[in-house]
Amino acid sequence: MIRGTTKLIAHLGYPTATFKSPMIYNPWFERRGIDAVVVPMGCKPEDYPEFLRLLFRLSNIHGALVTMPHKVSTLALADRISVTARIAGAANALRLAEDGAIEADMFDGEGFVRGVLGKGRTLAGTSALVVGCGGVGSAIAASLAKAGVARLALFDPQASSAEALAGRIAAAYPAIALQTGSNDPAGFDLVVNASPLGMRDTDPLPMDPERISDITFVGEVVMKSEITPLLHAARAKGCAYQIGTDMLFEQIPAYLEFFGFPKPSVEELQASAAISY
Amino acid sequence: MIRGTTKLIAHLGYPTATFKSPMIYNPWFERRGIDAVVVPMGCKPEDYPEFLRLLFRLSNIHGALVTMPHKVSTLALADRISVTARIAGAANALRLAEDGAIEADMFDGEGFVRGVLGKGRTLAGTSALVVGCGGVGSAIAASLAKAGVARLALFDPQASSAEALAGRIAAAYPAIALQTGSNDPAGFDLVVNASPLGMRDTDPLPMDPERISDITFVGEVVMKSEITPLLHAARAKGCAYQIGTDMLFEQIPAYLEFFGFPKPSVEELQASAAISY
Repeated sequence: MIRGTTKLIAHLGYPTATFKSPMIYNPWFERRGIDAVVVPMGCKPEDYPEFLRLLFRLSNIHGALVTMPHKVSTLALADRISVTARIAGAANALRLAEDGAIEADMFDGEGFVRGVLGKGRTLAGTSALVVGCGGVGSAIAASLAKAGVARLALFDPQASSAEALAGRIAAAYPAIALQTGSNDPAGFDLVVNASPLGMRDTDPLPMDPERISDITFVGEVVMKSEITPLLHAARAKGCAYQIGTDMLFEQIPAYLEFFGFPKPSVEELQASAAISY
Repeated sequence: MIRGTTKLIAHLGYPTATFKSPMIYNPWFERRGIDAVVVPMGCKPEDYPEFLRLLFRLSNIHGALVTMPHKVSTLALADRISVTARIAGAANALRLAEDGAIEADMFDGEGFVRGVLGKGRTLAGTSALVVGCGGVGSAIAASLAKAGVARLALFDPQASSAEALAGRIAAAYPAIALQTGSNDPAGFDLVVNASPLGMRDTDPLPMDPERISDITFVGEVVMKSEITPLLHAARAKGCAYQIGTDMLFEQIPAYLEFFGFPKPSVEELQASAAISY
């Protein structure tokens, strides 16, 4: 129930028609009696910098969920940026701090990490390979670093992307052993495809499954099908794995904590959501 | 249920805590299956011109309800202004036209007029006295003119306010016989207190009830109590009358028509509203 006192959380993106978050967050707010609402706002890129500034001057603004095409440009507009968002080079969450500052964070990678931890795996002190160093790969690498991996390998066909990401991680987490230049999955505790490979039926595999150990955890970001060719191969080998949509849904509790609300379980969110996921 | 496709109707004012409209409109949208939502946005005056411009560039914006302190400043920001809003010197409703223009209208007076008509009275060809030519008085006078009154008397202790309002009405409705300078209610089919007199217990009456005929309809805008001293006197004489809050609630169907939605009855709105009124 929207009231004059309701905290406004803008869902900023363009276009908005496929937005699902309002149907997940709002029923949960209602169920918990939390006086907040997520409202889609279809802001065009050319209007975004000034609109964002004025939106965060509204007396009832609480924060924002940020999606395409604003995730990268948001970084330059926030007053304070988390280490994770800075490494990722993008933000998907904003909140108004008590001093009026706009604080940015990035939860795409956090969703991936929470999904892995929720499946009983440990990340602190382990080794991980991230294949694909675009937006989502950078976010996952940033969150793996935050989660305490000891060794992190980054691969991208565009070598400069992997090297730039490694540089940003090294600056924030100097203790991590970083490697670039290879997508060989041998010898890692966790490997993840954060590239678009698997979106098309004709795509090659992002890494050689023959070289994945059966004790390696295999993560995927492609959501075109639940079991992508990489996951199909991993499953055949007996590997534990995580499907693409887990990253999306596991990040919702992280968002809610960021906004200062009680932390729900994913099951509780699913029970109240107006869409099935 | 807010979706990515939901039409956004901003409720613009500052502060927002006492806003009631979301609790009236949104349950009715839900009940009728209309994919629209009213969302309070507490915009400060200094941010309003630029925020309004960018708000109406959102891809899912449909319109806005405008309240204090923005009703007057809205006029200068709209691309097209109704005759009623122009006479009133203020707007409380905005919609996005198909050509991208922002259209402004004013329904404070329309609510008053609909209330009177709904009580079985006729306005076309009749005479009316409006006491108080500030914001609400100007809006009521504009709507009485639109409703076809033949003779309209305007009174304000500040004579220049009444004269300026008369000038605006004369320009738009040259056939109406206009008078200013007297608050004598004798000889009018309808008289209305649109001044603040009655807000305080020590206020004098806005007009002399001894001079009100028992066939005159008496309207009131003061909402401090349902039966103000003026209405108490009118009722004692056997006059038909209208209480202050009727103006508020009768304008809701007018807003909904303006936004292009089906027209509800006031009873239907009351049945679905999350607040009692």
